Amino acid sequence: MDVKYINAVCRATEGIFQDYFGLPSRPLAPYAGKFAVDSRQVSVILGVHGQLRGQIICSFELETAKKIIGLMMGGIIVEEIDDMGWSAIQEFGNWVAGTSATEISKEGVIVDVTPPVVNEGNSIFRSHNIFISVPMQSEIGVIEIHISLKKD
Amino acid sequence: MDVKYINAVCRATEGIFQDYFGLPSRPLAPYAGKFAVDSRQVSVILGVHGQLRGQIICSFELETAKKIIGLMMGGIIVEEIDDMGWSAIQEFGNWVAGTSATEISKEGVIVDVTPPVVNEGNSIFRSHNIFISVPMQSEIGVIEIHISLKKD
Repeated sequence: MDVKYINAVCRATEGIFQDYFGLPSRPLAPYAGKFAVDSRQVSVILGVHGQLRGQIICSFELETAKKIIGLMMGGIIVEEIDDMGWSAIQEFGNWVAGTSATEISKEGVIVDVTPPVVNEGNSIFRSHNIFISVPMQSEIGVIEIHISLKKD
Repeated sequence: MDVKYINAVCRATEGIFQDYFGLPSRPLAPYAGKFAVDSRQVSVILGVHGQLRGQIICSFELETAKKIIGLMMGGIIVEEIDDMGWSAIQEFGNWVAGTSATEISKEGVIVDVTPPVVNEGNSIFRSHNIFISVPMQSEIGVIEIHISLKKD
């Protein structure tokens, strides 16, 4: 698994934070080589297919989820996540994974993503293929992007 | 979402139980229409792409997971799930979702699946598209298949 995919994911997430939320973000130390990663409280999971196959998982705490929804809805304070809120979280995951896929495709590897599914609850993700994990720090908290991809 | 997909998933799971484990299984009442479903302790998640896009999730309790691993390894008793065990669980999820995809394709809708990711822990899955859920009963416990697919 190539460092260029890590860079692609960083570019995608930084771009989304800047363009949609007007917030700076920066990557913390990426790590790779694990077949299991701990989730945070909310995870958005997208399948990846094309020249690479696997999953992109975007994971963050519930408080960060509420702040993301608030920003997506124009700056409101979110106390509880309702159905509309969960829908916004799926859309956010779609942005991150979709833009990551676009950035990976710019590296000469054509990939596409499936619609997202959201997982709520602390859990462990495991894959046959190692995860590359990129934690992105911003003022609304850390968003971890885990990618587990293999060449088709 | 069509009843023929439910039947395809039932056929796939019944076939796997019979062919690989020599065990009968039968569908309990399927249910549909929910945008959120509770997971059991272990879930295998696969992305679906092609003429339908979304996810197939295969979910069961930890005790059932141990029995599945035991059967896959020739009838041993599994006390704790180690790395090889988790790998077997991914493979099992791959069988179920992959065979489901094949059975759905027989209904004239061509789909393919991504490699699986396993989620360990009780959690909630949410999707923009409603889930169709098929619980399959067998002597090693209930396996729930949740499918959330939309036409591309």
